[in-house]
Amino acid sequence: MDADAYLADHAARVDRFLDERLPPAGVPPEALHAAMRHLIFPGGKRLRPALAFAGCEAIGKVAAAAALPAAAAVELIHTYSLVHDDLPCMDDDALRRGRPTVHVAFGEAMAVLAGDALQAEAFAVLTAPGPVPAPDAVALTASRELAAAAGSRGLVGGQADDLACAEGTEDAALVESIHRRKTAALIAAAVVLGARFGGADADALTRLGRFGRRIGLAFQIADDLLDRDTDGASSYVRVRGEERSRARTEQLLGEALAEIDEWGERAEPLRELARFAVRRKQ
Amino acid sequence: MDADAYLADHAARVDRFLDERLPPAGVPPEALHAAMRHLIFPGGKRLRPALAFAGCEAIGKVAAAAALPAAAAVELIHTYSLVHDDLPCMDDDALRRGRPTVHVAFGEAMAVLAGDALQAEAFAVLTAPGPVPAPDAVALTASRELAAAAGSRGLVGGQADDLACAEGTEDAALVESIHRRKTAALIAAAVVLGARFGGADADALTRLGRFGRRIGLAFQIADDLLDRDTDGASSYVRVRGEERSRARTEQLLGEALAEIDEWGERAEPLRELARFAVRRKQ
Repeated sequence: MDADAYLADHAARVDRFLDERLPPAGVPPEALHAAMRHLIFPGGKRLRPALAFAGCEAIGKVAAAAALPAAAAVELIHTYSLVHDDLPCMDDDALRRGRPTVHVAFGEAMAVLAGDALQAEAFAVLTAPGPVPAPDAVALTASRELAAAAGSRGLVGGQADDLACAEGTEDAALVESIHRRKTAALIAAAVVLGARFGGADADALTRLGRFGRRIGLAFQIADDLLDRDTDGASSYVRVRGEERSRARTEQLLGEALAEIDEWGERAEPLRELARFAVRRKQ
Repeated sequence: MDADAYLADHAARVDRFLDERLPPAGVPPEALHAAMRHLIFPGGKRLRPALAFAGCEAIGKVAAAAALPAAAAVELIHTYSLVHDDLPCMDDDALRRGRPTVHVAFGEAMAVLAGDALQAEAFAVLTAPGPVPAPDAVALTASRELAAAAGSRGLVGGQADDLACAEGTEDAALVESIHRRKTAALIAAAVVLGARFGGADADALTRLGRFGRRIGLAFQIADDLLDRDTDGASSYVRVRGEERSRARTEQLLGEALAEIDEWGERAEPLRELARFAVRRKQ
């Protein structure tokens, strides 16, 4: 099992599903639908969808395709948050993944609306019947968990605090708190939702929640390590230094892997993705 | 039954529920939570929540309290859309209901984030267990319907087309199409979701969908009639004139009421709210 191959395979799967679910750019309102697709295709590594698939496989009960609604929904939330983060009133970024950001390509108003519609689409995808039938309780609870991860105590709350300390902070606990909400909440939701659609029991979901929150935090610290030249205001590396930051990612990775230590071969994709997320070189 | 009294009673009910569900302004991130509450309290007429309660009552099976999650969710979507519509890159409004808009009071970035979090909260409220137990299928289908009403083929799509014809349009069909999506989709969802939580069968839901879409469109034309001095770009009145606009609202009201003509006393609140929505003087 190789993380790169797993990511590539599963990116193709979620891309096909997203392409089927999102209205084509030719459907009115054309500009809105084109703006919604602009940052979805081509996408990034699709790490969150891959974690949803791997979370489903780690349960070992149903085919990974059962996780498609979860995989697509977390990617839609992630993408909407990037579209809004890039806005002039937020981070004011002109480029993302080497292409013009949505507000540069389509205007600011359309970028706000495209992000809004992508968030609605996440809940549309998650609550619609998926390719593998799931009990209503699974989709309903997954929707509740996604709403919590995306909301004011999760992703949006982390972004709000991140903006509030734009001048930089020396408070390592605050930086961790921002990372936990802005990044780790959705990454943990990806793993947990995928496992939920895979038929996970309560104990497995608890373990995967802890796994996902640790990997999510380590992923963001790894991001800070890769970005350290840019001197981000809420960078863990700026507050803790490179050596302690790297040690923290390895500690978190170890704790995460311990949660699923006895799960055998079926959890191997999840382990490989965890190592990739924390140790990647770009 | 008097629409004003029904609105006042049910506004108080949904306000209490929203106040319990939304994080207090003192919970971190304080500014975000204060910004989320800024346009929720004090609210407007709470017409959409009242329609959800009345939709539930019209089925006559369970107490109107069963509709609380639906009532709160549609109001949260409505409010988030107002917060984003008021942004400088959209309608650039400084005042709403006589108070500073969210971006004026909290800054533009916080207004974007508050709107985003309110949308997530709508789905959180709708997927959480309500005060009256409802089958999982009810909450799940309601969430799917709300996502559709809020998304790119509903509310956000209507807003995108509204912005696109900011210079004004002479195309009455386009104006109706914008009104149907920007306003009527969520108003119809309010009625249908309330009825769904009230245990409505498929036939009743179909009738209430048609009822809600007609009332929603008539409500927006009535709004254009009240606002006619402001010469809105997508105003039905500007395109059709006052007399034909007024006739259209009465036609729509009649068609809507015909859908529930034989429902007896239990549908009286719904009928009164429909008349109020279409004939109100402010």
